[in-house]
Amino acid sequence: MTYEFLGPRRIVTGEGSITSVATEVRSLRGTNPLIVTDGGIAKTDLLKRLTSVLDQEKMPYAVFSDVEPDPGIAVVEKGGKVCVQGDHDLLIAFGGGSSIDAAKVISILVRNKGSVKDFVGVPEFGNDPVPVIAIPTTAGTGSEVTLVAIVTDEAQKLKLVVRSPQILPSTVLLDPTLLTSLPPEMIAYTGMDAFSHAVESFLSVRSNPITEQLALAAVKLIYQSLIPFKENSQDTELASSMLHASCLAGIAFTNSGLGAVHALAHPIGSHYHLSHGLTCALFLHQVLKENKDSALKKYEILLDTIGLSAPGLSAEGSAEKLIEAVGAFMKRLGIPRSLSAMGIKHEVEPLMIEDAMKNRALLSNPKKFDQDKITELLWSIR
Amino acid sequence: MTYEFLGPRRIVTGEGSITSVATEVRSLRGTNPLIVTDGGIAKTDLLKRLTSVLDQEKMPYAVFSDVEPDPGIAVVEKGGKVCVQGDHDLLIAFGGGSSIDAAKVISILVRNKGSVKDFVGVPEFGNDPVPVIAIPTTAGTGSEVTLVAIVTDEAQKLKLVVRSPQILPSTVLLDPTLLTSLPPEMIAYTGMDAFSHAVESFLSVRSNPITEQLALAAVKLIYQSLIPFKENSQDTELASSMLHASCLAGIAFTNSGLGAVHALAHPIGSHYHLSHGLTCALFLHQVLKENKDSALKKYEILLDTIGLSAPGLSAEGSAEKLIEAVGAFMKRLGIPRSLSAMGIKHEVEPLMIEDAMKNRALLSNPKKFDQDKITELLWSIR
Repeated sequence: MTYEFLGPRRIVTGEGSITSVATEVRSLRGTNPLIVTDGGIAKTDLLKRLTSVLDQEKMPYAVFSDVEPDPGIAVVEKGGKVCVQGDHDLLIAFGGGSSIDAAKVISILVRNKGSVKDFVGVPEFGNDPVPVIAIPTTAGTGSEVTLVAIVTDEAQKLKLVVRSPQILPSTVLLDPTLLTSLPPEMIAYTGMDAFSHAVESFLSVRSNPITEQLALAAVKLIYQSLIPFKENSQDTELASSMLHASCLAGIAFTNSGLGAVHALAHPIGSHYHLSHGLTCALFLHQVLKENKDSALKKYEILLDTIGLSAPGLSAEGSAEKLIEAVGAFMKRLGIPRSLSAMGIKHEVEPLMIEDAMKNRALLSNPKKFDQDKITELLWSIR
Repeated sequence: MTYEFLGPRRIVTGEGSITSVATEVRSLRGTNPLIVTDGGIAKTDLLKRLTSVLDQEKMPYAVFSDVEPDPGIAVVEKGGKVCVQGDHDLLIAFGGGSSIDAAKVISILVRNKGSVKDFVGVPEFGNDPVPVIAIPTTAGTGSEVTLVAIVTDEAQKLKLVVRSPQILPSTVLLDPTLLTSLPPEMIAYTGMDAFSHAVESFLSVRSNPITEQLALAAVKLIYQSLIPFKENSQDTELASSMLHASCLAGIAFTNSGLGAVHALAHPIGSHYHLSHGLTCALFLHQVLKENKDSALKKYEILLDTIGLSAPGLSAEGSAEKLIEAVGAFMKRLGIPRSLSAMGIKHEVEPLMIEDAMKNRALLSNPKKFDQDKITELLWSIR
């Protein structure tokens, strides 16, 4: 086994750590940051908490709040132009995965000629991106510690992936007080995104002893914290646990790769504009059933990690129990079991199959799935 | 809490992975490596296994096998000269912590003017060190994944510490088949070095969620694998577990710092020329007792990690049980309990106290120890 490991750069944590943002901007030699966020956040007190710190420190800045969920090519390119026109030398990504992903791609565009499509895949570019400070306001995406960003090609209903160690954010601020007004569904969906990252990273054929430990730690933290956090979003200790778990899962999967859940979730997410965490959750149970025989030992370890192993249980029995426990966990979180339960009429289109089959994440899934199996799984969430 | 995290660069693992050494040299653009090792290894088949790969690949190389345990300034500077004279462009550190540490410092000397003493502390130097490929032949030091190297100032009986992200080895080869002829005592002592790294890193006041998970994973692996590996060094699976554990502990402590055990172990080690793992083990039990009240919750987690937590046990009770379990673990490993048990007449000299008090590791110990306490602890191993 050969692996390279890319850790996060700098993480600042704690209640109120957002107040250190100006110091962090300066230590990256930034003088005039552009805040990249979405319209929802721009309307809340959250954005004011961020800008008031910059105001107090008399640091000039501007706000680009056009990011939408699953940001498209146009908005990312617009962000790039706004950044260049305003002569901004640093980006503060403030929001969920969409804002952080958008900022990561904008950071390349600002310093290099070309459009988003020129940087898809593992791009080469001559100039270093502008630094990004990532401040997540949800606990799930892990984008603040990964080298991947996803932009939606709306015309083609495709997710474009940009992958480069250079888009790893320079600094991450994890402030649990930013999460206390999240709606319960959002907590459940984003939490399931992190949970899927952790489980798929652990089961990945490219996992290594480092990623495995980080992934297991995330699984354990999320299994313990997500339901109580959903029930009490005011609890900053639970919020902090979820932020850390999401980071641990992010560090793990950016080094190990993911699996079939993510390959399947992307086309469904971009087709129906569903929360990424929700689409992951829709597939997780079914994919765990399919992968079982290819990773029995790892299933046993996962069961032990969530504290449910029992003496005398066979490997097969442990794996069954794990699948059951994950199903029960999602039920308690109130995750819908199918698209029809959400009132969505689902038809599997050829492009969805093609998109899933092309997804790199399939390569690290413990079992090889052919086109028929992928099609069957895409139908399974009907 | 604010932390930066430095992960290892590239790790190649597996039985026989040493056969890929020439490929790894080339991928770092090396053409003429210098093998840095000790006289003991030079006499064994281990060195032949390494050189035969290079011979087969027709790669020129030379061997510098003067490294002694706790390498001194003279030998490191000699290594630097040999490297420059032979026009070597890469170092292969082959051995235990002494050879790896020596190579890390040599890598600076080769490219920068100055003697070892010019690079003590956190040195600045103009030229990048030559790349180092580290191949540990013991499982304990973790030096293959840390940014620290220790050179002994023999005249002053002091350990000089060189600390720089630039001496992190570029590539690590973990081949468990290199460990199968280790004597049982060496397995126990080096394993206790790794165990002390893991425990001290976890208890460090500078630990973070990433280092804590890696440290706990190392504690668990070592607690499970070290005694069986000592009893059967032919078992490459156990050797592999110990190599990974040693790496996990190394990654953890190089990011979190250590504690009083290491501060105390260094002066004793350099004074009596004892194995570093052994001197750590001598202090571990006593320091765990002293730190107990300052880290009760972490002691509970450690007890749970080694599988000994019991329902209904108080925090205090758990901590006591952990201390007892660590004592029993070392007893089963046959670790001597005192210097007198090894026939060494021990006198605490002022320099030992001074050396321990100056050690950076004391700053991350969960409890503040004053000079009286340090003196008492130094006497405690009599």
